[in-house]
Amino acid sequence: MNPRIERLRESLEEPLLVTNPTNVLYLFGFKSSNAALLVEQERVRLFTDFRYAEAARAIDEVEFEETKRSLLWDLAGRLSGRIGFEADYVSYSGYETLGVGAVEPVPRRGLVERLRAVKDEQELAAIKRACEITDRMFERLVDETFVGRRERDVAWTIGQLFNEEGADQVAFESIVASGPNAARPHARATEREIRPGETVVIDTGCFIDGYASDYTRTFVTGPVDGVIKEAYAVVLAAQQAGIDAMRSGIAGVDADAAARRVVDETSFAGTFGHGLGHGLGLEVHEAPRMSTESTDTLASGNVVTVEPGIYLEGRAGIRIEDNVVVVNSGVENYTGFRKDLIAVD
Amino acid sequence: MNPRIERLRESLEEPLLVTNPTNVLYLFGFKSSNAALLVEQERVRLFTDFRYAEAARAIDEVEFEETKRSLLWDLAGRLSGRIGFEADYVSYSGYETLGVGAVEPVPRRGLVERLRAVKDEQELAAIKRACEITDRMFERLVDETFVGRRERDVAWTIGQLFNEEGADQVAFESIVASGPNAARPHARATEREIRPGETVVIDTGCFIDGYASDYTRTFVTGPVDGVIKEAYAVVLAAQQAGIDAMRSGIAGVDADAAARRVVDETSFAGTFGHGLGHGLGLEVHEAPRMSTESTDTLASGNVVTVEPGIYLEGRAGIRIEDNVVVVNSGVENYTGFRKDLIAVD
Repeated sequence: MNPRIERLRESLEEPLLVTNPTNVLYLFGFKSSNAALLVEQERVRLFTDFRYAEAARAIDEVEFEETKRSLLWDLAGRLSGRIGFEADYVSYSGYETLGVGAVEPVPRRGLVERLRAVKDEQELAAIKRACEITDRMFERLVDETFVGRRERDVAWTIGQLFNEEGADQVAFESIVASGPNAARPHARATEREIRPGETVVIDTGCFIDGYASDYTRTFVTGPVDGVIKEAYAVVLAAQQAGIDAMRSGIAGVDADAAARRVVDETSFAGTFGHGLGHGLGLEVHEAPRMSTESTDTLASGNVVTVEPGIYLEGRAGIRIEDNVVVVNSGVENYTGFRKDLIAVD
Repeated sequence: MNPRIERLRESLEEPLLVTNPTNVLYLFGFKSSNAALLVEQERVRLFTDFRYAEAARAIDEVEFEETKRSLLWDLAGRLSGRIGFEADYVSYSGYETLGVGAVEPVPRRGLVERLRAVKDEQELAAIKRACEITDRMFERLVDETFVGRRERDVAWTIGQLFNEEGADQVAFESIVASGPNAARPHARATEREIRPGETVVIDTGCFIDGYASDYTRTFVTGPVDGVIKEAYAVVLAAQQAGIDAMRSGIAGVDADAAARRVVDETSFAGTFGHGLGHGLGLEVHEAPRMSTESTDTLASGNVVTVEPGIYLEGRAGIRIEDNVVVVNSGVENYTGFRKDLIAVD
């Protein structure tokens, strides 16, 4: 029997209706935008509409039932009794719909996400492949011309390089943020032309076999002033402090604090305005989190980003992000691409 | 004052908390993954976290307040009284969080989506540009080689052609579905090598200035049997019947029925297993819908896809999709690319 379903069953107090598409994918490899698994102790039922029916029939170990596209509405008419639902995923409207008939919806949270946070060998191998492709992409990217090109043209180049290196697809819309745009941690690639003497933050990753990588490197376009170099060194030291603190059993908030302290002891105090990192797997952002607000604890088999940054409003930004797997005694870093300050043309 | 906010206020019974990022974008051009607008009769407040603070300060006509990343949790501590929330978007957990303090959350649905469904001149111009780019992309795509290439390689080519034609980005992961894969309406581009004598369904679109196109064309790779040609002619006739029925004031369910009837009067009855179309704008799927389950009515200024299909399990599939704008007397078709059955190499 499916070991993921077996582990999930151990945490169930009532049947669980899994509707988050990524969770459905994780449990049975079934990809759709509109499917539900009802996981009971004795059986698993798969509900989806016409569009995915042919694929659904091919799934072993589930009882398939075709539904209308209004999936929750349809299920509300078929099911009854206490049924757990994914309260972090199902909308308030979905909850109301599910409860219109004989179902008593019970909000449950993170049951599948908790399993997903601990990767098995096959998943780790896929993420490692994604990281190797990303290493090669960055090795080629630094030979490209940056100055005089628009940020979005560089983003397209990244996509082409990923394709040539064997990625299935780019994992998210690449960030290429130059000059003052680099001061926005979640900038996008714009029409702005990259100029000499700037920082350029590149945040990108790829999917291979369903699993993601998520790297950031910050390049400079020729000589920059001393403050930028100093900030770069601080970000690098903060990342190393975070990595040194990480191991199975440490709280996400403590790993974050270890890195944040390095920034906050400098003149850049207060400029690291986001969390240290997040889990990575079938989704680019998943459990566990490392941040000042995290309630997670790291465990062996977690794969997380480690990505401190310094943001100087209106002027420049620096972020360095690696992907690491947590092991008992520390971490193994899957990211091979260099981290010294690289000047690009 | 912002006319979209003015129109929204007319439908409010209490302050509305807008958290759907696309709705926030629509109302104030503010792009983020974690922001809230509280729309009251007298003022508009914008809440977002550090990452988007710099961009938020640049927005006119709103009072900006920085929050923690746990946005709803933070708002639950700041706000009070009856506040509408977007029940189709906010998760059940989000609803619980919002209500932990002095806020009385009131579920509201579709208030901004209803405005978004009716496009203004500027929006129509953007969608028209997206369609023109998509026309040019398809005109170049038919000159490409299909036979012997993997579906995903063709999907990458589509991305390159879109880039060269000036698209900001591909609107969604392109579907390139050949042979038996074409029988799945929501197939993706796989590793399958395209062979001679098959149908190839290409479903793709692009974004320009924030607005999407969404086309489908079905090509054949050399000679196919008569049933395929017959099915193609039926899909084309069904699409024309749908287009002929559409105008301001018709129910989505009736427009769908007009097209569906054409398929169901043939030997292909029952093989058109999805709705006739959906709204298109800032999102690839938005209001209004045309389907057997739709409760929407078409109005002037709606932009919708018209996309009947016939799916022959294990064997082939055909779908033809145009993008049209609804006007009083009918529709204006923004899609220029040809619809006769094209044989590609």
